[in-house]
Amino acid sequence: MTNDPRLTPLAASLPATVPFVGPEARERQTGRPFVARLGANENAFGPSPWAIAAMRRAAMDSWKYGDSESHDLRRAIAEREGVSPENVMVGEGIDGLLGLLVRLFVAQGDNVVTSDGAYPTFNYHVAGFGGTLHPIPYTGDFEDPSRLIAKAKEVSAKLIYFANPDNPMGTMHDACTVVRMVQAVPESALLVLDEAYLEFADESVVPDIPIEDARVIRMRTFSKAYGLAGARVGYALGPKAVISAFDRVRNHFGMSRMSQAGAFAAYRDEEWLAHVRAEVIMARRRIGEIAAECGLTVIPSSTNFVCIDCGRDGAFAKCVLDALDARGIFVRMPFVAPQNRCIRVSCGTPEELDAFAEALPLALAEAAAG
Amino acid sequence: MTNDPRLTPLAASLPATVPFVGPEARERQTGRPFVARLGANENAFGPSPWAIAAMRRAAMDSWKYGDSESHDLRRAIAEREGVSPENVMVGEGIDGLLGLLVRLFVAQGDNVVTSDGAYPTFNYHVAGFGGTLHPIPYTGDFEDPSRLIAKAKEVSAKLIYFANPDNPMGTMHDACTVVRMVQAVPESALLVLDEAYLEFADESVVPDIPIEDARVIRMRTFSKAYGLAGARVGYALGPKAVISAFDRVRNHFGMSRMSQAGAFAAYRDEEWLAHVRAEVIMARRRIGEIAAECGLTVIPSSTNFVCIDCGRDGAFAKCVLDALDARGIFVRMPFVAPQNRCIRVSCGTPEELDAFAEALPLALAEAAAG
Repeated sequence: MTNDPRLTPLAASLPATVPFVGPEARERQTGRPFVARLGANENAFGPSPWAIAAMRRAAMDSWKYGDSESHDLRRAIAEREGVSPENVMVGEGIDGLLGLLVRLFVAQGDNVVTSDGAYPTFNYHVAGFGGTLHPIPYTGDFEDPSRLIAKAKEVSAKLIYFANPDNPMGTMHDACTVVRMVQAVPESALLVLDEAYLEFADESVVPDIPIEDARVIRMRTFSKAYGLAGARVGYALGPKAVISAFDRVRNHFGMSRMSQAGAFAAYRDEEWLAHVRAEVIMARRRIGEIAAECGLTVIPSSTNFVCIDCGRDGAFAKCVLDALDARGIFVRMPFVAPQNRCIRVSCGTPEELDAFAEALPLALAEAAAG
Repeated sequence: MTNDPRLTPLAASLPATVPFVGPEARERQTGRPFVARLGANENAFGPSPWAIAAMRRAAMDSWKYGDSESHDLRRAIAEREGVSPENVMVGEGIDGLLGLLVRLFVAQGDNVVTSDGAYPTFNYHVAGFGGTLHPIPYTGDFEDPSRLIAKAKEVSAKLIYFANPDNPMGTMHDACTVVRMVQAVPESALLVLDEAYLEFADESVVPDIPIEDARVIRMRTFSKAYGLAGARVGYALGPKAVISAFDRVRNHFGMSRMSQAGAFAAYRDEEWLAHVRAEVIMARRRIGEIAAECGLTVIPSSTNFVCIDCGRDGAFAKCVLDALDARGIFVRMPFVAPQNRCIRVSCGTPEELDAFAEALPLALAEAAAG
């Protein structure tokens, strides 16, 4: 399609299509619903019943705009984190917050450092604002803090993206490593510490970083452990000066009222969170067993998904993925070598993992037969 | 506050605060809930019971991301409009869609034309992307299509914003005028026809514009007639080439799943829409009567709000507004003279309008006493 001449030069330069196909879109393509929805790292154990009840109550009030300040939720988060509400920004998922953050810090031609194969939506935003991405390879299936920092210094990066725990591999660095990384962030840069999966990790490895440390902003979400991916609620924790900058560009009335109510209720239900964590740990173990039964190993995970090493190259893993897709099993896989030797399987319900356990040996055999 | 030196020059140039105070924020400031919520043009008659039921059902499924293509809703809209789903983009309210549209078409220094005192959130997005706004005065409380077009030609504008029906005055141009305006749009420009309030207008004045006309994009919302302001669902109708450009920059998984379900159900309940329209017409009449009882006149409205001409200048109307606020009545007012001689009152429930009827004479007396 020819570009509209009225588009900005930057908009005209962007690709017209985005490769991230959602499960519903894929179901429409194949004309067949998935049996097991294990590709988007959603929380199959669902949100807290309190959250569901709160959203149901709020449905009636949907004629009112949401609270432009997400006051109650921000205060609850601030209290638990021991910070001020001015250190907390609530937004439409981490995706929305990342878009705003890139817009605030990355002008056309500015440099940004990330890991090669890390979160594509972050890369999409960087490209969307004309930034130049410098992707750093993983080291042994871990993001590599030292090399990320070294590259950031070399190119005077504006942002450094670092997910801990990591997606898509599920690996995690301990608190000391992260604190050392923060201390090494060059003056030009802000470290974007994406902690979307933090609640699935051992609490002992959660880094303690002073909230007013100007070198880092932490991203959290209700999409994973809190089971509210479809409600679109994320939050950023950081120094007041960085957090307040969101107010210059965000949609002040952009939050859904039901989502605000759901996230607030979910956040208070710590018992449900513990239940989800326990279920996820069992599911991780089960995925390991399923892999082992096929003679495969897994990458140890601190998240609600597990990478299974299919033991050969990316082309082979892609065949396994396609064969699973043909059997109604939705999974995804890392984008770059050598991590793309793996398939990434979300911690589904026991029933979904049964379906996966049945399909995996068949998919592997089909892929091996070529 | 000193600017963070890492912000882009554009971000650093933006004001740190935004003046649009939400009703909840105002309630927290005063420590007192509003008795009548008549300031944000919300739909006090609420969404369709079908929509409430659909959102309640969808609450349980909130652990799944929403459909990245909003397929069902787009198809329903396309069917009713007699266009292709590729002519429809669903987004997080008109506010979200306007932000994306400005981002696609307005580079730093590009010119944009709007009416002086029209939608501040559009202006906020234009400033946020570095565009230069050229505000054109209203003519007799109507936006002025000829002058908007003339200015757009003069400055080679990229976007022309035109709300029909208008907000904040509630006035509307007929179909012929709008069609003539579209035909006069210069080649440099895209006309953004904001039809947020269209469902409240007489159908005979809705302009018929070929969907592939490259000069115009129409914005619609579920926030007003459909009563789903808090769910954040808007849509754009336009030529495929323009609509597809949103895919380059939007958050593909940004829609709330509950909101998608609610909007889809609301859209199908045409009886409820007719009920809301009838209630709004009664409320408009009532607001006119309340004004008349105080010796005031109203601006004839094609929307779900009515501007009451307070008969003096903006300072006086502001005193009336403050006196209403002190009595727990939330209303807003136009931003610029001479439209700011008015207060803008949303079509609330009979009970809310009773409270307003009681407060208005007192507020007028207080304002007159100075």
